[in-house]
Amino acid sequence: MRCTAYAGRVPTTTPPSSSTLPDGPSRQGLIERRDLRPDDVRIAIAYAGICHSDIHTAREGVGAGAFPDHRRPRIAGRVTQVGEDVTRYAVGDRVGVGCIVDSCTECEPCKDGMEQFCLRPSVGTYNSRNYDGEWAMGGYSQEIVVTERMVLRIPDALGLDEAAPLLCAGITTYSPLKRWGAGPGRRVGVIGVGGLGHMAVKIAAAMGAQVVTLSRSMAKAEDARALGSSQHIATSDTEAMRAARGSFDLIINTVSADIPVEDYLRLLRPLGALVNVGLPTEAYSVKPFALVGGNKVLAGSMIGGMAQTQEMLDFCAEHGLGATIETIAAAEVDAAWERVVAGDVRYRVVIDTSTISA
Amino acid sequence: MRCTAYAGRVPTTTPPSSSTLPDGPSRQGLIERRDLRPDDVRIAIAYAGICHSDIHTAREGVGAGAFPDHRRPRIAGRVTQVGEDVTRYAVGDRVGVGCIVDSCTECEPCKDGMEQFCLRPSVGTYNSRNYDGEWAMGGYSQEIVVTERMVLRIPDALGLDEAAPLLCAGITTYSPLKRWGAGPGRRVGVIGVGGLGHMAVKIAAAMGAQVVTLSRSMAKAEDARALGSSQHIATSDTEAMRAARGSFDLIINTVSADIPVEDYLRLLRPLGALVNVGLPTEAYSVKPFALVGGNKVLAGSMIGGMAQTQEMLDFCAEHGLGATIETIAAAEVDAAWERVVAGDVRYRVVIDTSTISA
Repeated sequence: MRCTAYAGRVPTTTPPSSSTLPDGPSRQGLIERRDLRPDDVRIAIAYAGICHSDIHTAREGVGAGAFPDHRRPRIAGRVTQVGEDVTRYAVGDRVGVGCIVDSCTECEPCKDGMEQFCLRPSVGTYNSRNYDGEWAMGGYSQEIVVTERMVLRIPDALGLDEAAPLLCAGITTYSPLKRWGAGPGRRVGVIGVGGLGHMAVKIAAAMGAQVVTLSRSMAKAEDARALGSSQHIATSDTEAMRAARGSFDLIINTVSADIPVEDYLRLLRPLGALVNVGLPTEAYSVKPFALVGGNKVLAGSMIGGMAQTQEMLDFCAEHGLGATIETIAAAEVDAAWERVVAGDVRYRVVIDTSTISA
Repeated sequence: MRCTAYAGRVPTTTPPSSSTLPDGPSRQGLIERRDLRPDDVRIAIAYAGICHSDIHTAREGVGAGAFPDHRRPRIAGRVTQVGEDVTRYAVGDRVGVGCIVDSCTECEPCKDGMEQFCLRPSVGTYNSRNYDGEWAMGGYSQEIVVTERMVLRIPDALGLDEAAPLLCAGITTYSPLKRWGAGPGRRVGVIGVGGLGHMAVKIAAAMGAQVVTLSRSMAKAEDARALGSSQHIATSDTEAMRAARGSFDLIINTVSADIPVEDYLRLLRPLGALVNVGLPTEAYSVKPFALVGGNKVLAGSMIGGMAQTQEMLDFCAEHGLGATIETIAAAEVDAAWERVVAGDVRYRVVIDTSTISA
């Protein structure tokens, strides 16, 4: 079945070499979604979230074949058709799809509910081949066909538009906040007040933690307070950074730029954890004593498994935590990308896919 | 009160500059222990453990003033006198002292049972000044005077000789094994089969974990099995290292040499932790993706608080886990140090302090 998608190029089954990756304007094209398998759900996409990773992947070709580049989903919409074996969803259900569209179900990580670390490995929603060899084609599109195992239920309390980005920014921050014990009596730092950071603040505050935001300047201090931050620290303020030493139980780093890791480790209390959810390209340099002194932790975290992603959606619905979004038409994708790159978006852009002309 | 101690020099209240640190033979001298304060316990030392840190400190001057160098304790002995306010110990009790002899009791880490991270900071048993300004003078000595708060009870099931090294090697490995969940169904790697590593193996096995030892060659494979290791991997064997990828829940690195951190992170399962208890001097270089992919953890751990140290002693007594030791006379300290440096000790040397001539 064909549907219309919005992307940098009309998809092809032969990915171009990285030297031919397009950086020209996006354009609309037709893509083929597979016929429904017994366990598949067809979803009419209402909103597709834009993430910095989309741009990074399309422009810089992370991974081997960066195309077809119908970009990453975090889509939300409604079920329009279900395969004969589908039991969890029915036509009309409000659903979403995150960063992966398949996993083997049989390996240890899959069995442990960490499908994102499937050993086969998992199939990314874009920039990835399905197990049948066909390219996954992302979510900047009118429709998507996905096994029900990889479909999430969007609670009624969340708008589909504000829910779409949660499948990335929500789970990416919820997972480490949960694992590392954000909650009452805990002081949680969030480095970077952007797409990921704004959800980290909202979720950590809803968990009952005292949230402190950190970014280069005080420019976002007021915004951060509105999101739930109790204090904002400019990391360029050496006096404020010194005063904050030893005061955090947990710091979530949402910034993908290189950071002075040891400066942040010093902000932790004994047993504290600095958890990275961004992906800077440079290696961290960490003196062993920076971790041994104070039993400190440097960790990473990558999205979350299906059960935890559903848990996150339910938590966000319960606490009224949608992503803070700007909605655009499909034709505005290129302009929005530029604004994402410039850090000029507060805090997530979603594409209203009804603006994709049929 | 004076007692005889065995050390590189007769102690002085003026620490020499690092350029004059002695590397000549150790010799015996008289030191002054303070008169008992109301909360103090006087201990007749029976055994004093030798640790690589002693040598490192004496020879390379870690910290500012590396002297008086009556070396680190991990001593075990019997109470000979108690101050008027002492409630926990009585004359004749079997006791030990670890790496710290005082802490402020009032800061957050002290209140949280992590006296080793006291903010005042804590007073090391050597290479450190007491809060009254007097130098702490270690445990290669006939006697020591310590506040009862810093004294541990040695259970009857443990010999004083095999218990002394537990105050260092035991707690240093017990603490991260406990924190990071070593136990039934968990696969725990131990890098290095030496003073620390041999206790990590014994304790992890007693906790019910499957233990795998890793060191450069297969030289210690048989010894490691006898200690409780189910498998030994030579890290120089690239095939074996590849086969072990993704198989560990926890790896304790007891080696103070620089290690290829990312190679070990690859051995971890998702959520797995690589915990360093040694202190290499070079900074680790870690690409963020090595942590983000698999939600992995790089952490450090340093000895343990008083309550946990007592818990460790009780655990070791319950499971019959003394340190594997060689006992020497005080006059053999220099020769023993050479053997420690050469990695030729299996696995801890303790000084029989009755050999210090009065």
